[in-house]
Amino acid sequence: MKTLVICSGGLDSVSLAHKIAAEHELTGLLSFDYGQRHKKELGFAAACGERLNVPHRIIDIGEIGRSLSGSALTDDLDVPDGHYAEETMRVTVVPNRNAIMLAIAFGVAAAQKADAVATAVHGGDHFIYPDCRPGFIDAFQTMQRHALDGYADITLYAPYVNISKADIVTDGAKHNTPFAETWSCYKGGARHCGRCGTCVERREAFHLAGIDDPTDYEDREYWLEAVRTGSERQNG
Amino acid sequence: MKTLVICSGGLDSVSLAHKIAAEHELTGLLSFDYGQRHKKELGFAAACGERLNVPHRIIDIGEIGRSLSGSALTDDLDVPDGHYAEETMRVTVVPNRNAIMLAIAFGVAAAQKADAVATAVHGGDHFIYPDCRPGFIDAFQTMQRHALDGYADITLYAPYVNISKADIVTDGAKHNTPFAETWSCYKGGARHCGRCGTCVERREAFHLAGIDDPTDYEDREYWLEAVRTGSERQNG
Repeated sequence: MKTLVICSGGLDSVSLAHKIAAEHELTGLLSFDYGQRHKKELGFAAACGERLNVPHRIIDIGEIGRSLSGSALTDDLDVPDGHYAEETMRVTVVPNRNAIMLAIAFGVAAAQKADAVATAVHGGDHFIYPDCRPGFIDAFQTMQRHALDGYADITLYAPYVNISKADIVTDGAKHNTPFAETWSCYKGGARHCGRCGTCVERREAFHLAGIDDPTDYEDREYWLEAVRTGSERQNG
Repeated sequence: MKTLVICSGGLDSVSLAHKIAAEHELTGLLSFDYGQRHKKELGFAAACGERLNVPHRIIDIGEIGRSLSGSALTDDLDVPDGHYAEETMRVTVVPNRNAIMLAIAFGVAAAQKADAVATAVHGGDHFIYPDCRPGFIDAFQTMQRHALDGYADITLYAPYVNISKADIVTDGAKHNTPFAETWSCYKGGARHCGRCGTCVERREAFHLAGIDDPTDYEDREYWLEAVRTGSERQNG
């Protein structure tokens, strides 16, 4: 199955690229530059393409991002610290981002005569992001069957959609993903901050998977406090 | 219903904008510049926005267009003359174009808190373009309900999806659409060529609607021959 992987340079999508390279035929990596503040991540996607010896293309959708303002990923709101609790996460949502990126990826896949588009959406995102849920993935696939009927038959492959980020770490380790060569931090500094939602989630995932976290965090222990506070908030 | 209209500057989408302005609350026009050779059309969309007193935004998706090469709309293949017969039309298809444009429009509509996105896809396009068929429109709406669940509830409004271009001319006339201020020709010259697929289709639609065609064609009578040849080809 000739597969194009949507790869941001983060832990999930780089693990996915290594999985596809091992199990299918990886034809390329596709990244989106939507005016996010952490372009640093894209460098890790490029490095992944070089490592796996496939073309890496960045599509600039910055103008679309500017049309979709109101998200911490693209404008000047502060990125919240702490665990992924709903009230802090809503601010990082770019409306319809996944649908936009997937639709473009399907166009690219059709032009390149690929058989599948792979995305690293995962179970941990369901609570906050409706466009990471299995229902969305199924509906998107159905939509694309209609859209390309008679021209192309492209599968939307989302092998992580029902598993946790900890399970992705386990799967990534199985395919020798170099986790230190992935980027998660929303703040985009020289090192992972260790305090923002994605850093906390990343640190926790390695802990739950029982796999050593090679990431260089500025604040390596903040996650424990954040997870504890998050649990207390959820339970009480 | 606060409605954002996807408007290329063509006859169909300008008629749609006038319809929405008359029947709903038109909040703006959205055009896409996907590297098409007939950018001239976009000027007619801008003029429509001024006439109806709403903002007109052009989103540049040219880089996406370049990634989706293989279509006469964006590369150096010749645009075919003649009626919209399948063999000549396939060359004008940009893979997944409608899905991409609609997904972006839904993102913009969500950011602007609009209630609906309106598109001028019509029945005459069903035969060739799978992403203009009612099944696609329904599937796209379902996908968007999942994608924006809990954030926005946006309707995909496609009032022309089951009617012909001739019916659109009739509807446009009802809402005082200034047809001379719309552009169809794929060749993008100073005047409508009268010979390409869209010119022939346009000329025929006015004829079938029994409404005077104010368009300035270089070759005003070519359409009759093309329609006759097309019918003969279909019948024999």
